[in-house]
Amino acid sequence: MLLVDVGNTNIKIYKDGTIKSYKAIFDFEFPKEKFYYISVNSKLSNILKNLDNAIDIEPMIDLQSDYKGLGIDRKVVCKAVYDGVIVDAGSAITVDVMEKGVHKGGFILPGVRSFRQSFANISDRLDYELDKSIDLNKLPQDTKEALSFATFGSVKCLIDSVRDNKKITLTGGDGELFLRYFKDCVYKKDLIFDGMREVIGC
Amino acid sequence: MLLVDVGNTNIKIYKDGTIKSYKAIFDFEFPKEKFYYISVNSKLSNILKNLDNAIDIEPMIDLQSDYKGLGIDRKVVCKAVYDGVIVDAGSAITVDVMEKGVHKGGFILPGVRSFRQSFANISDRLDYELDKSIDLNKLPQDTKEALSFATFGSVKCLIDSVRDNKKITLTGGDGELFLRYFKDCVYKKDLIFDGMREVIGC
Repeated sequence: MLLVDVGNTNIKIYKDGTIKSYKAIFDFEFPKEKFYYISVNSKLSNILKNLDNAIDIEPMIDLQSDYKGLGIDRKVVCKAVYDGVIVDAGSAITVDVMEKGVHKGGFILPGVRSFRQSFANISDRLDYELDKSIDLNKLPQDTKEALSFATFGSVKCLIDSVRDNKKITLTGGDGELFLRYFKDCVYKKDLIFDGMREVIGC
Repeated sequence: MLLVDVGNTNIKIYKDGTIKSYKAIFDFEFPKEKFYYISVNSKLSNILKNLDNAIDIEPMIDLQSDYKGLGIDRKVVCKAVYDGVIVDAGSAITVDVMEKGVHKGGFILPGVRSFRQSFANISDRLDYELDKSIDLNKLPQDTKEALSFATFGSVKCLIDSVRDNKKITLTGGDGELFLRYFKDCVYKKDLIFDGMREVIGC
């Protein structure tokens, strides 16, 4: 079973429980054997469509939802969680609420790097590395704390406001950063492949 | 009594209860009569220092606080509120907590336009005008709702988490946008001049 997750920056390949990551360059060489994939990368999607051994799982995804325009990657991670909140923290932070297998809605925040870049764009005086272990129980007492508190605190608070005691599943490149801020929370680096396997039924 | 608030984009002049706003260009002509000012604009600060009729009120501000590096504009609006939370929503959103005349700390979020720009920078698919009257009690069901909910919701939730039943005073160009989201909240467009008058004692 070969699974391929094609992002805008990286391509991840799952084979027999092992995952390898590659840079998503235009001339990336896909496997010659049969594989299932999802892609949010429009350039590579065009290549994939013409490969006989590549199976797009998008048409196979059956997710009950009223949400219009839910990205394929969000659909797939939702399939991995029957009941709970899924937080995929990458360049954006997507948050989706699942209840008994039904997608109830979700929202999209800027990613951690995007917050940092916003601050730097507003003023040189707000150009700081963020403190990734900022204490959210103490009011900030300098600029670095003020920016870090706002970034991690605003994400945490908004998620808490919709979670309704549900378990949180974190994923994505920055997912692990948020583990410290939530109760009843797990980090699953490769949730996307759990979702892909759920869709394919293997 | 002539008061001047020199920002990076605009210069506001208060005279006898009337406020006029000008573009903060490098060769802006300041009044010839005596005036009090604050400035966060380093270029114009250099000009102001050499004017005999211009009095910088920064050294006159007596604000009890452990916060290091609190901007002059934040100090001044804090002087206008003895007890409460001050939210100045402009290019950044600064939030400060005052308790019995003492500044307890604060934080800095990206401004509304900055959120919108972050989304557009992440992906063309996230390039939407935000809905400024988004319902925060309903999980979003499309991308525009998802981005709007995240922007206004994350700001609201983080402020609520520190307010501790205090009254909220909104100010700044986007301050009014947040009125609908808070209980026990007022919008004071010209809070900065209230603070300046408090500092000068007039």
